[in-house]
Amino acid sequence: MSFTAVPVRLSTLDPNFESQFAARLHWAADTDAAIEHRVADILADVQKRGDAAVLAYTERFDGLAAGQVSELELTQSDFKTAFDALPVAQKAALEAAARRVRSYHEAQKKAGGESWSYRDEDGTLLGQKVTPLDRVGIYVPGGKAAYPSSLIMNAVPAHVAGVQEIIMVVPTPVRGSVATGGSGATTATRGERNELVLAAAYVAGVTRAFTIGGAQAVAALAYGTETVPKVDKITGPGNAYVASAKKRVFGTVGIDMIAGPSEILVLADGSTPAEWVAMDLFSQAEHDELAQSILLCPDAAYIEEVQRAIDRLLPTMPRAAIIAKSLNDRGALIHTRSMEEACAISNRIAPEHLEISSDDPHRWEPLLKHAGAIFLGAYTSESLGDYCAGPNHVLPTSGTARFSSPLGVYDFQKRSSLIEVSQAGAQSLGVIAAEMAYGEGLQAHARAAELRLDTVPPMRGGA
Amino acid sequence: MSFTAVPVRLSTLDPNFESQFAARLHWAADTDAAIEHRVADILADVQKRGDAAVLAYTERFDGLAAGQVSELELTQSDFKTAFDALPVAQKAALEAAARRVRSYHEAQKKAGGESWSYRDEDGTLLGQKVTPLDRVGIYVPGGKAAYPSSLIMNAVPAHVAGVQEIIMVVPTPVRGSVATGGSGATTATRGERNELVLAAAYVAGVTRAFTIGGAQAVAALAYGTETVPKVDKITGPGNAYVASAKKRVFGTVGIDMIAGPSEILVLADGSTPAEWVAMDLFSQAEHDELAQSILLCPDAAYIEEVQRAIDRLLPTMPRAAIIAKSLNDRGALIHTRSMEEACAISNRIAPEHLEISSDDPHRWEPLLKHAGAIFLGAYTSESLGDYCAGPNHVLPTSGTARFSSPLGVYDFQKRSSLIEVSQAGAQSLGVIAAEMAYGEGLQAHARAAELRLDTVPPMRGGA
Repeated sequence: MSFTAVPVRLSTLDPNFESQFAARLHWAADTDAAIEHRVADILADVQKRGDAAVLAYTERFDGLAAGQVSELELTQSDFKTAFDALPVAQKAALEAAARRVRSYHEAQKKAGGESWSYRDEDGTLLGQKVTPLDRVGIYVPGGKAAYPSSLIMNAVPAHVAGVQEIIMVVPTPVRGSVATGGSGATTATRGERNELVLAAAYVAGVTRAFTIGGAQAVAALAYGTETVPKVDKITGPGNAYVASAKKRVFGTVGIDMIAGPSEILVLADGSTPAEWVAMDLFSQAEHDELAQSILLCPDAAYIEEVQRAIDRLLPTMPRAAIIAKSLNDRGALIHTRSMEEACAISNRIAPEHLEISSDDPHRWEPLLKHAGAIFLGAYTSESLGDYCAGPNHVLPTSGTARFSSPLGVYDFQKRSSLIEVSQAGAQSLGVIAAEMAYGEGLQAHARAAELRLDTVPPMRGGA
Repeated sequence: MSFTAVPVRLSTLDPNFESQFAARLHWAADTDAAIEHRVADILADVQKRGDAAVLAYTERFDGLAAGQVSELELTQSDFKTAFDALPVAQKAALEAAARRVRSYHEAQKKAGGESWSYRDEDGTLLGQKVTPLDRVGIYVPGGKAAYPSSLIMNAVPAHVAGVQEIIMVVPTPVRGSVATGGSGATTATRGERNELVLAAAYVAGVTRAFTIGGAQAVAALAYGTETVPKVDKITGPGNAYVASAKKRVFGTVGIDMIAGPSEILVLADGSTPAEWVAMDLFSQAEHDELAQSILLCPDAAYIEEVQRAIDRLLPTMPRAAIIAKSLNDRGALIHTRSMEEACAISNRIAPEHLEISSDDPHRWEPLLKHAGAIFLGAYTSESLGDYCAGPNHVLPTSGTARFSSPLGVYDFQKRSSLIEVSQAGAQSLGVIAAEMAYGEGLQAHARAAELRLDTVPPMRGGA
């Protein structure tokens, strides 16, 4: 079967550009009331019945029966066995990737993840103490989206932050089991596990792991059960049930962003071999039919060249069907007036992945305000960043780069303000605080400040 | 009318301590399905009808009728008029507080809010670019919880981060209007505004402001309307409708944590005047009947002294009724075996405010893992931190200090990874990335890496 991929061709010169552009960009997460309802029930049930509920849902949704949750626990020796069984090249790649990711995140911690303090002129100490979370949960999807690289990207920053316990949940549904409401994966067979994920758990240093998934796994991590320990934060991607469950337990535990479909935006000035750019567009499109690949370029001839490269390379790709559907439905090749205009459009999109495919990338980088990750220059293919350059591949999607950041060490740390007011400081601060507190009608606040004054004034408006 | 406040007396020596302690700590946010439902409807309606819906809900819930949303906009001159009308001492206090809060947050930005990068041995550049959000919304409640200090604590860090537009929403409901589903405040009269909040908007540098509230205000900020600009993040406290709306728009925009009732935990070694500690407990209790004030102390005689100070001081307090109810229902004076044990219990609570009321606070501080803010030494009353010491008073409540942090400059910034792989780097990274990508069945990823190799190998498993 042969496929063709012809991303829509837009031009900023076209008077209808704005509406065409808006239509192509549009994507909205389904908020499915039926899913929300079912998830609320599952959460409440796991909170109430603990292990018994987890076992029931795992049997019902994943077709996996067990007498006790402890039977669903993987061991460190499962991880090691999986790692030892890998071909040498794969072992080396996993270890090299983990090493580079660790080293980048160590630099990140040093750049902003350390405690700090100073004393002001009154001798008052002010600062922040930065400490790791105690225990985190990482959700790893079963089935087609089970990526060992994802596990590394979630677990390594937690490790670098100093998290002591990393609990992984990964469903292993039975082939053909009823997946609705479960982990959404139907391709694994009973007992068959994703060995690369287990090997990655070994390399990344996962503490404990359970073969459970779906909303029931999120609930077990958020509330704790007799067997599954309660965590402080849950990260990692999942299907609509997992996303809904995470959103619902937010507040009881921390969560990472809810991810939408993956996106790449390539800003090209025409200096990169067209095949490289075409393959970068493919590498996003092959994830998912909803993934979005966009090229912005001021050079019309180069856009033609990229389309020809697409035509030439597509038939060689094993995932040609997914790539073609993604590019045809959601892709776009956009001709712009200039690179400056291309940068401005990129800022409106706030893409997850942003390649500056230019021989002068540092000229354009300062113009780019919103993006999950910025890849500079022709050699920086997104796939290098996805696996092993070092920065995290868990990035804000669907325009959320306007207000959120790559997963990082900071997601596994929290801060406590430190304040030590000197006796001298209490004199000047006490007067200010009391004035404001009386203004807000909070007399005990005012009085707590005034009692620390060397000369305590009479209380205003006392009872 | 006279009140007595007798917080429950617990001891870690008591064999029933654990269950008594758990019972006293227990607090759970109501998840009211009726509120969730109504909020979902309001959000959908504002998203669809924009200004018209905002006007309709503002009239229905706040009793405030207007022909256009622009009539509900406050101006910079409203802010300045309010500020100019304040007594000199209040002006000075507001300005001093804002100045100190600004200076602390500038130090915070320097300590971790700046871009960074490095080059590895292959010449590959790795780092993060830190940039401000473009536009944020700050929710300011109407009625009894309308605190100018809150506005300063929300707006100043946004300013320091470099946010260009700060949009405030603050309901001004008409006295006696139907508050259900609205802003939850029924004490303001039509046209009457909280002048201190407006003055704080002047000092804190709010860009635009609208007198709207409730879920409709959250919706207007999250989706934008013809008049209210769409923001990137919404922060600030609100009632159950506001909290539910914020939770629901999370993902479309960023939000801060949903706050529960306020809490203070005092670790005392008996060296602080008992009246100071009693007043600090009051200053939390006076916020709200659900607020929680806890004292942990290894000295039984000192606990008696604090109770006597409570008895003596309570009758002088204008908010004695609220203080008494809060202390009686949710307060606790806990006798511990030692300061070490007191620290361990504090870590289980993960309090919002934690005072180390000791003459040797730096001995205990390292033992404390989880807290929103730590106040060291007898002179550091929480109220100094609430208003003017400098650190933020928006802190994680209800144990969420286990995984979250004070509001800070970082909440108004986001990060973009920076990656520039050199030609040399592309050779070593390309081999690793390709190996992992083939392992995950993502051949376009593998191929995008391999095309950058000086010698491009044949594709594995090509179609």
